[in-house]
Amino acid sequence: MALIDSVDFFYLSMPEVEDIGDGSQDALVVRVRAGEWTGWGECEAAPLVSIASYICPKSHSACHPLVDSVLGAKLDDPADILAITRTVAARSQDILQTPHTFSGIEMALWDLLGKRLGAPVWSLIGHAKVFPKLPYASRLFGDTPAETLAKAREVRTLGYRAAKFGWGPFGRGDAKADADQLHAAREGLGPDGRLLVDAGTVWVDDVERAAMALPALAEVRAEWLEEPFVSGAVDAYASLAARAAPLKLAGGEGAHNVYMAKHMIDQAGLGFVQIDAGRIGGIGPSKEVADYARERGVIYVNHTFTSYLALSGSLQAYAGFADHEICEYPVDAKPVARAITSEAILPDADGMIRLSDRPGLGIDVDPSAWGPYLQDVEIRIGGKVLYRTPAIG
Amino acid sequence: MALIDSVDFFYLSMPEVEDIGDGSQDALVVRVRAGEWTGWGECEAAPLVSIASYICPKSHSACHPLVDSVLGAKLDDPADILAITRTVAARSQDILQTPHTFSGIEMALWDLLGKRLGAPVWSLIGHAKVFPKLPYASRLFGDTPAETLAKAREVRTLGYRAAKFGWGPFGRGDAKADADQLHAAREGLGPDGRLLVDAGTVWVDDVERAAMALPALAEVRAEWLEEPFVSGAVDAYASLAARAAPLKLAGGEGAHNVYMAKHMIDQAGLGFVQIDAGRIGGIGPSKEVADYARERGVIYVNHTFTSYLALSGSLQAYAGFADHEICEYPVDAKPVARAITSEAILPDADGMIRLSDRPGLGIDVDPSAWGPYLQDVEIRIGGKVLYRTPAIG
Repeated sequence: MALIDSVDFFYLSMPEVEDIGDGSQDALVVRVRAGEWTGWGECEAAPLVSIASYICPKSHSACHPLVDSVLGAKLDDPADILAITRTVAARSQDILQTPHTFSGIEMALWDLLGKRLGAPVWSLIGHAKVFPKLPYASRLFGDTPAETLAKAREVRTLGYRAAKFGWGPFGRGDAKADADQLHAAREGLGPDGRLLVDAGTVWVDDVERAAMALPALAEVRAEWLEEPFVSGAVDAYASLAARAAPLKLAGGEGAHNVYMAKHMIDQAGLGFVQIDAGRIGGIGPSKEVADYARERGVIYVNHTFTSYLALSGSLQAYAGFADHEICEYPVDAKPVARAITSEAILPDADGMIRLSDRPGLGIDVDPSAWGPYLQDVEIRIGGKVLYRTPAIG
Repeated sequence: MALIDSVDFFYLSMPEVEDIGDGSQDALVVRVRAGEWTGWGECEAAPLVSIASYICPKSHSACHPLVDSVLGAKLDDPADILAITRTVAARSQDILQTPHTFSGIEMALWDLLGKRLGAPVWSLIGHAKVFPKLPYASRLFGDTPAETLAKAREVRTLGYRAAKFGWGPFGRGDAKADADQLHAAREGLGPDGRLLVDAGTVWVDDVERAAMALPALAEVRAEWLEEPFVSGAVDAYASLAARAAPLKLAGGEGAHNVYMAKHMIDQAGLGFVQIDAGRIGGIGPSKEVADYARERGVIYVNHTFTSYLALSGSLQAYAGFADHEICEYPVDAKPVARAITSEAILPDADGMIRLSDRPGLGIDVDPSAWGPYLQDVEIRIGGKVLYRTPAIG
């Protein structure tokens, strides 16, 4: 029997974080150890807040820090991960940050268990084999249509068959400005490139403003419009979806539990549901959503804007779905995100990517290159150290 | 014109926090200053995590710490609070903890603005007058039915006409054990006392287990069954609601934005929606939910298990609704919660409570008694102090 001996958090960041929609500028890597085994995972965004939710003093019986439910827990088989997940849901439910923090831990639990059992995570969660995925290059719109044109040409030159453009100025000006950006992206990709568009929640819940972008989206043959609205604005999604067809809506990255994702699948009129395993609570909840989506004819897509570790974690849930083929693939990730693993997940000669058959998440994490990025954090209460950045290695 | 000069967080806690469902064991008090004016608010639960979300380094453009949107902002009229709220929603959307933290800030903004404009907050948000509320004494079930009986008798002796029992062993054993607890509560309250029951999410989303408690709830004439399930399990709520009538379901305290609360109102079959202004983003969002609930025939109730400051904050939203009469009132609050304000909100001779007509939240906050409870927190990154507990006063 193995018990969880340690859970360590490594906050990595670029020296300078820019005020742009690029999620690869920092990372929170989680290391879990049980006996001789080690597993790795990654939480999405706001590393300091997630560290705090792991080690904070409890407020009451439904407001425990995660450490109270994870450290010392049994980890011998997948049922143990589910048991820990349930304990966390009950004991930490009133700490809002909990799902983001637990996501990285849960991913690390799967990685560790897979290594111990000699099985890739995707097989442990019920997939018989992995199918190749078509990566779309995930990029920010340029500040001008000319910049977007250049970015799109570069994507095409690099050999990507699909690209997503998002954030930046899109949706912040008028419909003409949006149209200029969209046509630039289409021109750069060429007529055959698959074009996806991410509005980055810019229209909050304003259906009429979002609808103004629909003609240009149709002209450039966008395959989806992602996050026109904030998470939760399900009625706005449903209204726009009815007007946007055949253009499909994509969304769901903000889902921090299975209920939210199912609610969007059932009621937002989505064509694609995008789940970040680093936010929704890890790989188990992601798989539950993937199965639910497939049964209802909604295409599951990972949301990933950081490292290859996070990419592996987010692809596991639907690795075995042959017909859910497209996947998000960060091409512009910052050096800190690239430094997390000692290997890359790269497109093959056909431009497809594929999860490894190796045990666990199938990707080697190597802290030896983290030095320049490691943030030296210390949290004290009453003079007592609750958290201090662990030594690397 | 006034600009926000400072936002300070005071983490107060009992020396020992017990592993019980009592939310009054710690508190995070927020002080906002603009020019000569000061406002106070309170965030619900997990103070360290909320502090971290206020001061953490940003991760990207949608993952800013709250300080970036609040400090230096203009605060002259209610529209400014809405503008800050919208900025926060956009720039901090990817830090999950944001709404809990912003709740206390937003409350303080209203308090400050009310004092400056010489108006109670309830009038600034659109209520013409305040109506008295019938407080229900909010208590934990005893470990045994005998303890619950004694607690219920005490509530009756203290003059409360309504009481809510929750958490503790309820729902964790079999239906017989639940029935014994319920009958003890009814016996202690006497035949005329209004009895409310809080399952504290114990059944997660298990409708059949929850349904086993329905006969005893009917026997004791409970007026509502609160949180049989976790936030988000809306389908489970709707299923149980259909079987529970005429018993009504209550829920919603877990809502951390207006969308979630509206979703529950529309689809969970609730008779009562319970909103914590310290979680949902403050008083403005609470008022929006209150109006929405009233239009749909759902009774709005505050959720409050901490201080008189939090109670005032949570009552503002429906202060002017004559027909939404019942309110949560913590009778067992720990000394730390009592120490936050220099005055109490107490039932009058008729057993009713009433919000003050004084400007702002209408309750005096006095830090002079906080010394024994103040937690000395320090957060450093790279040797630089991001947060240190401010001096009192």
